[in-house]
Amino acid sequence: MGLSAETAFIERLRALATHPAARGLRDDAAVLTPPAGRDLVLTHDMIVEGVHYLPSDSPADVAWKLVAVNLSDLAAKGAELTGVLLGYSLGDPAWDAVFVGGLAEVLARFKVPLLGGDTVSGRPGTPRSFGLTAIGSVAPGGAPSRGGARPGDMLWVSGTIGDAGAGLRIALGEIAGPDSLIRAYRRPEPRLAAGIALAPRVGAMADVSDGLLIDAARMADASGCAVEIDLDRVPLSPALATLGNDRRARLAAVTAGDDYELLFAAAPGGHEALLGLCKPLALTLTPVGRFTEGSGLTVFDAEGAVPLPARLGYEHEGDRQG
Amino acid sequence: MGLSAETAFIERLRALATHPAARGLRDDAAVLTPPAGRDLVLTHDMIVEGVHYLPSDSPADVAWKLVAVNLSDLAAKGAELTGVLLGYSLGDPAWDAVFVGGLAEVLARFKVPLLGGDTVSGRPGTPRSFGLTAIGSVAPGGAPSRGGARPGDMLWVSGTIGDAGAGLRIALGEIAGPDSLIRAYRRPEPRLAAGIALAPRVGAMADVSDGLLIDAARMADASGCAVEIDLDRVPLSPALATLGNDRRARLAAVTAGDDYELLFAAAPGGHEALLGLCKPLALTLTPVGRFTEGSGLTVFDAEGAVPLPARLGYEHEGDRQG
Repeated sequence: MGLSAETAFIERLRALATHPAARGLRDDAAVLTPPAGRDLVLTHDMIVEGVHYLPSDSPADVAWKLVAVNLSDLAAKGAELTGVLLGYSLGDPAWDAVFVGGLAEVLARFKVPLLGGDTVSGRPGTPRSFGLTAIGSVAPGGAPSRGGARPGDMLWVSGTIGDAGAGLRIALGEIAGPDSLIRAYRRPEPRLAAGIALAPRVGAMADVSDGLLIDAARMADASGCAVEIDLDRVPLSPALATLGNDRRARLAAVTAGDDYELLFAAAPGGHEALLGLCKPLALTLTPVGRFTEGSGLTVFDAEGAVPLPARLGYEHEGDRQG
Repeated sequence: MGLSAETAFIERLRALATHPAARGLRDDAAVLTPPAGRDLVLTHDMIVEGVHYLPSDSPADVAWKLVAVNLSDLAAKGAELTGVLLGYSLGDPAWDAVFVGGLAEVLARFKVPLLGGDTVSGRPGTPRSFGLTAIGSVAPGGAPSRGGARPGDMLWVSGTIGDAGAGLRIALGEIAGPDSLIRAYRRPEPRLAAGIALAPRVGAMADVSDGLLIDAARMADASGCAVEIDLDRVPLSPALATLGNDRRARLAAVTAGDDYELLFAAAPGGHEALLGLCKPLALTLTPVGRFTEGSGLTVFDAEGAVPLPARLGYEHEGDRQG
């Protein structure tokens, strides 16, 4: 990687880094006045070529997803966005230029400034990896934990489940299906406004990144509860339901991951208030289960108990860190 | 990478992540009450196997350096430390365990908490990369920029220059020399206390990571000044001077990089006050040059003008981002 390609890349980033805290990407660090009287919410996720994305994926989609998965973590804590820092491994200059275009698009879409980061030259011909740190803020004490569900709470989920998992299979040519599902995989929409609206009303909240079953099981475990899920109530999009809506199809949906919907626990009896939140957000909220005394996950449908699949989702625990 | 190795790794990290903001590394994000009435200082640096460290390096040293280079960026802004987030690519379990040992050591040494991060499985047999985000705080407006030097200011540097560059050459077997120089390369000491003491007294400050000449030239460029450096005044350690102290050796020292000393501009006349800061810190501060009207870098010594070497330091501009 010659200096000129790296310089060109950083000039493209500079055009995005117009927030004064970024200091034009010319200083050792970003310097930011944080929102007064707020707690900070901080997350860092990495993506690796060949593991989290395919070399053939559009670089603009890779940029979108890198940002969106981090913002989804902030959404799950009810955070307003403050900014992001990017860790970037340079590669092919044309690929990198399209990446910056996708980065510009996703940052503009969610109105979050690029504050800083690092650009390194990787080893030519080896898989690259990227990291993003996302920073947000909440009212003091206002970030729900993963572990605040109580026996008797209902388990809710936003939006629809399984679209992205089917979209990946369509993108890989394994099944046929509509582009809307591929888009759900490539361009997830973090539920930021819903997270802010829901945070004061929930006992626990997380995002669905590894699969509804495993993420619900983790919430139950962190809360010291059991959780039971009614598979029939899990909301599928019309596009996904067209591809299949039986028990097997629904189990595929709830173990697929990459949904980036919100999963939360709320005391029973507040349904109307929660559903009233949906309308201005154009986002459905659906109760799909219940927390109980005890431990573990059970799944049922109209036919009775559903044996748990061997794989509840992506079990790489690391992605569950801050 | 099996689940058990990843789980074991994360359990080791959890033992370090005792700060409440880390939420036991079990939540989507860290949630932190920031120091009241302070500005935040944020930096993110990556290191890549085979580029920034060698596969044969001790993993404990890799961990130390990953943290230290980021803390050095915060030191250059006069920041007190708040915490770090780690982006980690898993590899060999034994290597990873030693890495966590080095991480524990460096975090304890600089009293900075691990707040969160991400652990991913890379592709086996391919180079890994790691990222660290470091967060600190300063009094509002208290972070010096790289661009605040004024004509007439003196250019100062902390500590000694060139030790780490020689240490790398010793480690590679290119030259013979003492272990103290290898240690300077492998275990740099970010100048945190000095940065805090100096920040209110300087016009501009940065760390010397890519080489004294190139970092000084960048400070001059960002400040709209020229800078001239007296090569004879650049402080060399006794260990380094023993290996050579002529013009050629000094030019090697000022272009080697990895020093992680502080480089700063201060108005003339405050020498005594600045030198008074050294004593409690057990750190020397040395004036090595002067900013003038104009632009560009000139170097001289007792014999006269020194022709600039073709390479002023590591010119990968990316590492100069926040």
